[in-house]
Amino acid sequence: MNKKLQFGWVGEDNMALLTDLYEFTMADSYLRGKRNEEATFDLFIRHLPENRSFLVSAGLEDIVHFLGIMRFTDDSIHYLRTLNLLSDGFLSYLKNFRFTGTVYAIPEGEIYFPNEPAIVVTAPRIEAQVVETFLLNTFNFQSLIATKAARVVIAAEGRQVVDFSPRRDHGTDAAMKVARSSYIAGCVGTSNVLAGKEFGIPVYGTMAHSYVMSYKSEIESFREFVRDFPENSVLLIDTYDVIEGARNAIIVGKEMARKGQKLRGVRIDSGDLARLSKRARRMFDDAGLGYVRIMLSGDLNEYRIKEIIRKGGSADVFGVGTDMGTSRDAPALGGVYKLVEDNLGPRMKFSKGKVTLPGKKSVFRILGEDGRFRKDVITEEGGKPNSKDYYPLLVKVMENGNIIYDPPSLPKVRDRFLENLKLLPDDLKNIDEVHKYKVEISHSLKSIIKGIRSKIMS
Amino acid sequence: MNKKLQFGWVGEDNMALLTDLYEFTMADSYLRGKRNEEATFDLFIRHLPENRSFLVSAGLEDIVHFLGIMRFTDDSIHYLRTLNLLSDGFLSYLKNFRFTGTVYAIPEGEIYFPNEPAIVVTAPRIEAQVVETFLLNTFNFQSLIATKAARVVIAAEGRQVVDFSPRRDHGTDAAMKVARSSYIAGCVGTSNVLAGKEFGIPVYGTMAHSYVMSYKSEIESFREFVRDFPENSVLLIDTYDVIEGARNAIIVGKEMARKGQKLRGVRIDSGDLARLSKRARRMFDDAGLGYVRIMLSGDLNEYRIKEIIRKGGSADVFGVGTDMGTSRDAPALGGVYKLVEDNLGPRMKFSKGKVTLPGKKSVFRILGEDGRFRKDVITEEGGKPNSKDYYPLLVKVMENGNIIYDPPSLPKVRDRFLENLKLLPDDLKNIDEVHKYKVEISHSLKSIIKGIRSKIMS
Repeated sequence: MNKKLQFGWVGEDNMALLTDLYEFTMADSYLRGKRNEEATFDLFIRHLPENRSFLVSAGLEDIVHFLGIMRFTDDSIHYLRTLNLLSDGFLSYLKNFRFTGTVYAIPEGEIYFPNEPAIVVTAPRIEAQVVETFLLNTFNFQSLIATKAARVVIAAEGRQVVDFSPRRDHGTDAAMKVARSSYIAGCVGTSNVLAGKEFGIPVYGTMAHSYVMSYKSEIESFREFVRDFPENSVLLIDTYDVIEGARNAIIVGKEMARKGQKLRGVRIDSGDLARLSKRARRMFDDAGLGYVRIMLSGDLNEYRIKEIIRKGGSADVFGVGTDMGTSRDAPALGGVYKLVEDNLGPRMKFSKGKVTLPGKKSVFRILGEDGRFRKDVITEEGGKPNSKDYYPLLVKVMENGNIIYDPPSLPKVRDRFLENLKLLPDDLKNIDEVHKYKVEISHSLKSIIKGIRSKIMS
Repeated sequence: MNKKLQFGWVGEDNMALLTDLYEFTMADSYLRGKRNEEATFDLFIRHLPENRSFLVSAGLEDIVHFLGIMRFTDDSIHYLRTLNLLSDGFLSYLKNFRFTGTVYAIPEGEIYFPNEPAIVVTAPRIEAQVVETFLLNTFNFQSLIATKAARVVIAAEGRQVVDFSPRRDHGTDAAMKVARSSYIAGCVGTSNVLAGKEFGIPVYGTMAHSYVMSYKSEIESFREFVRDFPENSVLLIDTYDVIEGARNAIIVGKEMARKGQKLRGVRIDSGDLARLSKRARRMFDDAGLGYVRIMLSGDLNEYRIKEIIRKGGSADVFGVGTDMGTSRDAPALGGVYKLVEDNLGPRMKFSKGKVTLPGKKSVFRILGEDGRFRKDVITEEGGKPNSKDYYPLLVKVMENGNIIYDPPSLPKVRDRFLENLKLLPDDLKNIDEVHKYKVEISHSLKSIIKGIRSKIMS
């Protein structure tokens, strides 16, 4: 993949300006006040979005790449100068800006939970500060979509799920990131051809109602299409009437069979999908076309898919669009990026509902005797959990500005997620009820917190 | 603005692949079947999203530009060949692809309604087909955000609204489009520096809690910041305690006043914003700092803003993030792109809830005697409304592949929206209740529909 192509909207040249203005004014003030000491910020999610019991990490590859190439072009600095806001000293500083920090992160495809540091940035304060907006924008969204897609994949119970969302995603970059994030979370592919090209994700497509309508009759449109794509035809059978459409597809499927060809499938995009798919399945089976696959689509989400399966609907593939691509029931992930340590030592906020765990930390996943996830433990940096079987969630990805992490291939990331999903306790896979996974604060970290609290209160 | 920078993710080179795969298989089939006759497609919204009474057009500039430069690079075609799906003839066709169609559209910033054709594409069928996904992706999202932002602006009743959403938007391209679309809908600016640079939108910023926390005391952080930005300081006063923060801001504001400087403002980001802002306002006024502006932020949306104002909260500026940037209560606009005319004549679907108005059409906005919007009328192409004061909503933007439209500057687009908003009936501006605006089908268009219906039924 061409790394130059990795970023949204403006390519990467001026991407360092995709930042809230206050990052620059604060940074300027730090520079003038000689306050550019080393500081550590945690990116973490405070609360699960509604209905969710776990989160899926996604977006890290973009973040590591960005931190590696982040520069302020002359063009960018010229614009900043026109604001008549920032000091000449700061603009000169930006000219030579390089990210020199050290970064730990939870790898893509790993399941994680609120309050666990997902990305930990230790760098001179200014560097750590000015990357905030990009990191949040990138991680929040991709993690949001991977989390939503995981729910859809769980609901499909082994049936295939394909991303059909490009027309409803929030712009072109979103369409790319949805394809990638949903693939990580177990989808088998996407309708988005560009995502196929750039990420190597399998692409899927059928036909639209306008194709069927462009012929005088439905069966004529089917015949035309299978003549052109004898090996790859998925016929859309609901333009006029699904049962009539299934009959036409059977006629065409038998015509193909006589030529030694196999109709690949049909798609139903409207109506009572459970009932219609069950009926269509029987029709195809009775006609000796048991190999014809049924794809369902049309405003699907994890709840509707579960309902279709519960009602005995017969689907091999679900095409899922708007609900997955926008995470419609919870379209934002409230990730935050908080100072946890600086020259004044470990820092924390005690505001109600907004507690921040202080200092550099480690996170461990503890496995039960059955090998499945038992709980996670957050410790101070260098701490160890009090258990036998565990693995650390945070991986060092950058050291002193150098990328020391070779991002796994996308299929490997996807495998990691699928392996995670197997080891996740079953109750957390219930899409209708939120269940709580245990995330423990270690005794030693608790003492550190106690110390800070008593110092503040004194 | 550099047009090369206009598109998301991959720049524009391979943007023609940001398309659902089926557009290509259908197009290939049309080419092989010699079915590339002229066809007309309407892009329109079937239903208003929940809670909305009107829509705001946005995204057209991107669309016109894309149709002008849309090409299939060798790189794109090479990838398509690897799919082993499309014919050599079709791949050769793509090599020389140019969009040669004619396009009418509702200009950006114009208020519009469901079932009104917002973009009308007439082109050889293949060309009209393969642009579908990009057009929907681009128009749906930007129109969605402009529509949401308009509600926030209405709720603010003349107070300023600033886009604070980049960290929660759906990727980098989304952050750019949110800044632009919300500015069209009356926001005064954005925190997104890159949007400031690329679109010339005013940028706004204050400071973060981490800045305040990075000093030993709040007042020290305030003093440092105003020393660095004496003309542009908006102090964040809720890191520890808002009232204490306001007292510290007053001390610093008075110190500034003695030097002939004016503290610009304070921001409150948490707590009971109505009560706290009212109290802070009084404190500043009593201290002779009546010019200090109060900015409120923290999970705001149109409903919360309205409530704050109703309760007598005192705000000059609202910073609005997640809810506006993701259109959280309705995060997708269900725009569709439907065949309405081809060599077989005007086409329409009669499916329940999915009716398509047939043929090429015109849309007119009828003004009442008070000059305000009275109703819209949809006619067949060339039709005229039966009224005195009206203007056409659709403007010809491309003719035979040539762009014949000089897109108005962004401030002009914003002015158009604000002018529209003045002329919109008051009940449609009620953010708590959905009201219906009259969109009429002309008698002549009704007869055409009747004719088609009786032909189909016969």
